[in-house]
Amino acid sequence: MSDSFSFRLTGTHGAARAGEIATAHGIVRTPAFMPVGTQASVKGVHPDEVRASGAGILLGNTYHLMLRPTAERIAALGGLHAFMRWPYPILTDSGGYQVMSLAPLRKITEAGVTFRSHIDGANVELTPERAINVQILLGSDIAMQLDECVRLPAERTEVERAMKLSLRWAERCKRAFEAAAPGRALFGIVQGGDDLKLRKESARALVDIDFLGYAIGGLAVGETQTVMLEVVAETAAALPAARPRYLMGVGTPADLLEAITRGVDMFDCVLPTRNGRHGLAFTRFGPINVKNARHADDARPLDEESRCPAARDFSRAYLHHLFRSGEALGGTLLSLVNLYYYQDLMAGARAAITAGNYSDYAALTKGQWSVRRDIDGDEE
Amino acid sequence: MSDSFSFRLTGTHGAARAGEIATAHGIVRTPAFMPVGTQASVKGVHPDEVRASGAGILLGNTYHLMLRPTAERIAALGGLHAFMRWPYPILTDSGGYQVMSLAPLRKITEAGVTFRSHIDGANVELTPERAINVQILLGSDIAMQLDECVRLPAERTEVERAMKLSLRWAERCKRAFEAAAPGRALFGIVQGGDDLKLRKESARALVDIDFLGYAIGGLAVGETQTVMLEVVAETAAALPAARPRYLMGVGTPADLLEAITRGVDMFDCVLPTRNGRHGLAFTRFGPINVKNARHADDARPLDEESRCPAARDFSRAYLHHLFRSGEALGGTLLSLVNLYYYQDLMAGARAAITAGNYSDYAALTKGQWSVRRDIDGDEE
Repeated sequence: MSDSFSFRLTGTHGAARAGEIATAHGIVRTPAFMPVGTQASVKGVHPDEVRASGAGILLGNTYHLMLRPTAERIAALGGLHAFMRWPYPILTDSGGYQVMSLAPLRKITEAGVTFRSHIDGANVELTPERAINVQILLGSDIAMQLDECVRLPAERTEVERAMKLSLRWAERCKRAFEAAAPGRALFGIVQGGDDLKLRKESARALVDIDFLGYAIGGLAVGETQTVMLEVVAETAAALPAARPRYLMGVGTPADLLEAITRGVDMFDCVLPTRNGRHGLAFTRFGPINVKNARHADDARPLDEESRCPAARDFSRAYLHHLFRSGEALGGTLLSLVNLYYYQDLMAGARAAITAGNYSDYAALTKGQWSVRRDIDGDEE
Repeated sequence: MSDSFSFRLTGTHGAARAGEIATAHGIVRTPAFMPVGTQASVKGVHPDEVRASGAGILLGNTYHLMLRPTAERIAALGGLHAFMRWPYPILTDSGGYQVMSLAPLRKITEAGVTFRSHIDGANVELTPERAINVQILLGSDIAMQLDECVRLPAERTEVERAMKLSLRWAERCKRAFEAAAPGRALFGIVQGGDDLKLRKESARALVDIDFLGYAIGGLAVGETQTVMLEVVAETAAALPAARPRYLMGVGTPADLLEAITRGVDMFDCVLPTRNGRHGLAFTRFGPINVKNARHADDARPLDEESRCPAARDFSRAYLHHLFRSGEALGGTLLSLVNLYYYQDLMAGARAAITAGNYSDYAALTKGQWSVRRDIDGDEE
C-alpha cells in the first residue's frame, strides 16, 4: 500500500475518462461508483458482499457518524475502516448536505451551521474546521470540504451567496486539513446551482485554492436531467484533467452513463440499496419491480447471466414472495443485485473507454433496457 | 442420495442418543437443531449462510406457506426445496400450532379446524387430510400430523379431549400420507399436556398407529422448565428407541441440553433468529445483549474462538452501534452468531454422546455460561 494519494488517467474517449486513484487503502478504478454506508453499514449488506460486488470504495456520512456513535468513539476504536470492517478506500462527505436535508432548526452563519440532532435533540455546531476534524477522526482516505447546498429552483442571489460562502469554507477546510495524516486527500466542491456562470466561477476559485480532487455538488436536488447534465458538462470542462471529478449523490444508471460521457470519474448514490429494499431490481433488461403480481409464478431468475449470485440463484417468484411476506432477505438480495449491477456498469464503462468505444457501450447498454422492458421489465 | 427414510442410532450415553436420519435430500445428524424458515426464509439470513452454520435440516411452516404464496404455487415452482433454494432436508409442521396461536376466529370440530387467514381474512379449512396434502405439495422430507395443542395450564378434561382428537387426526393423517412420494416420512405428535398418564396413553396409541418418528408437542406453552422436562423424560421413555424423537418449539440452549439428556433427538425454535434480531447473542460465555451501553466502546469480538465469522470479525462496539442505529445488518449478524452457536452446541452434544461423556459436556457447557456471565455476559 502506498502512503500517497494520487490519480492518473489510463484512457480517454471524447470527454469520458478511465483512471486510477491510489490511496493508502488501495486502488480505486474510475469511473467508480461508491455504495453509501451512511451509518457505517451499507444497509442490509455484509461488507464482504459489498466488496464481492466489485466496489472499490465506500462513502460514509459525517453527519450521521458524528452524531452516532460519534467520530471520537470511532477514532478510539481504530477508525472507520476497522470499525465497519472495510479495509479498502473510504470517502466521507462533510455533513453539509445531511444537515440541510435532515436536521431540524438549522441555522447557517459565516462561522458554520448549527442544528438540532435528529437523534437526541442536542444542539450541534458544524464548522468547516469541525467537519474536517470529524473526517480526520474517522480516518477516511478522501475527505470533503463543508459546503452549503441549495435546493433548486432557487433565486440566483441565493445560489450565489451559498456558492461564495462555500468557497470561503473551502479555504478554511484546506487549512484545517493540514493536520491530517499524509496520504489522505481533501476534495473541494463546486457549487452554483443551475447557473453556468456561477459554476465556472466556483470551479476557478476552487482550482486556485488547489485540491487533490473536485466534486460537483448541489445537483440532483430538483432540477431536470437535461439541466443537470449541462451543468455537469460545463463544470467538468472547467476542472483540471489531472484531478478526479466526483458528481455527488447521482444517480440512476442512465445518469451515470451520461455523466461519464461528460467527464465525471466518481459517483455515490443510495439508489441501489434503497430501491433494492423497495423491491426494484436494476438489470440488463431495465428495472424490474419484483413486487408486481406478474412475477408471482415466474420461475426465471432476474438474470441468469448476471455476475451476481442473487440474480442467478433465486426465482422471481421467490423474490416476489419475500417482498409480499415482508421478509428482510428480499431487500438484502435485491440490494446485492443492484450493487453488482452498478459495479458492472462501471466496469463496462472503464473497459469501453480504454478500448475507445464508450459511446457505443453507453448506447448499447441503454438500448437493451428499452428493448427488453416490454417483455421482462417494469415501468418504475 | 437414498430414496428411503431411515434412522439409526450411532451412540448412546444414558438416555442421550446420537444418530443419523437419512432422507432423500441427505443425512441429518442427531441431536439436530432445525432453524425455522417460517415463510420460506430463515429470517434475515441467506440460505447459504444457514447451511454454513452447520444446519442439516430446516423447518417450514405449513400455516404460513399455505396462505402465502400457497402450497399449490410452491408445488408448481418445483417444491419448497427449490423455491427457497435449500436442497437439504426439510421438515414441515402441520399448521395446527399456528392456527391456534395466530389465526383469528378459529373453530375446531371433529373434521378439522376452520379459521380466518391473518393475511386477507379469507375463511380457510385445515383438516388432517388437507394438512397432509399441503405438506405433500411442499415436498418436505418429514411431515407432521395435524394436532390440537392446548395452552397450559388447562383442565385435564380439556387436555384429554384435545389429545384424543389429535389421535383420531393422527390416523387420518397416516391414511392421507399414503399418497406421498416414497422416501418421505410422517411423524405422529404426542399430546397430553402436563399429565403423565395422558402422555403415555397418547404415546402408546401413536406407536400402535406406527409412525417413522414421534414428536412431543404441546410443551413450552406456559409450563415451567421442570414440568416440561419431566414430561419429556416420561414421554421419550414411552417411545420406541429405533425412531427419532422431536421436541417441538424448544428452546433455550439449557432446554436443549436437558432434553438431550432425556432422549430427545430433534428440536426447532425461533429463538436464535428472534433473539438475534433483538440484539441478544448466545455465546460460550452466556447470553450477551449487545444493545447494553457497556458495549459501546468494547473493541472485542463476541467470541474470538467462535466458528462463526460474525462472532469473530466485528467488535461488540460495532454490533452495539448497528442495533442503536436500527441497521438491519445487526440482526443478520447476530442471527448468524446464534445459528452457529446452536449448531455447535448440537455438534458438541453428538461428539460427547459418541465419546460417552455427554453429562460432563452438558455440565461444562452450562458451567461456562455462569462463570463468565459476570464478566462478559448479560442477564436476559
